[in-house]
Amino acid sequence: MSEQPVKSGPVVFINVFDIAAADLDAFTAQWEQRAEMMRAKPGFRAFHLYRALSTQARFQLVNVAEWDSEEAVKAATSDERFQASIQQSAAQFDVSAFPAVYRAVLAAEA
Amino acid sequence: MSEQPVKSGPVVFINVFDIAAADLDAFTAQWEQRAEMMRAKPGFRAFHLYRALSTQARFQLVNVAEWDSEEAVKAATSDERFQASIQQSAAQFDVSAFPAVYRAVLAAEA
Repeated sequence: MSEQPVKSGPVVFINVFDIAAADLDAFTAQWEQRAEMMRAKPGFRAFHLYRALSTQARFQLVNVAEWDSEEAVKAATSDERFQASIQQSAAQFDVSAFPAVYRAVLAAEA
Repeated sequence: MSEQPVKSGPVVFINVFDIAAADLDAFTAQWEQRAEMMRAKPGFRAFHLYRALSTQARFQLVNVAEWDSEEAVKAATSDERFQASIQQSAAQFDVSAFPAVYRAVLAAEA
């Protein structure tokens, strides 16, 4: 088996947040403002922001967002207001984010 | 805003893998065998295994799986064959996994 993502078409942007549980509510409020910006961008399809049930989880928040293409993600996230909001959150909270663009290589339903 | 996951109902199991790009194909083959075990378990709904488009991404693989409940996830992942396979992968590959159970706190579609 040599599973490779296909070269074109829809992508999934996943961002994993390493953040203290105590900061979650305030960080999520700022994140929601950024999500509102992203929703208006060309190529946006959907997002889910997931929060861990346990405060012991290493990554308390995970964003999974669908976009039309990798190019659409890059164009949207280069927005100056968006980047300024990220800088504000980075200064305000002790947070590490690990964003990347993905495609499904395996999938199944029950 | 104080976004909290709801207390019952379906959950999303997310596992983030920190693994060398060179190991991806072999690791994914073993992962697929484990996924086949999980598909047969009570409460399993669906999974997607996502692979990063860039080999520079910190987390090359992300599994997003839907289950009926947190209890279903715990029961399924306690399977001895499943745990033995995880130990085999941990011994064979330089991989760190960060599994946790989540619920969506924010979501939107285009």
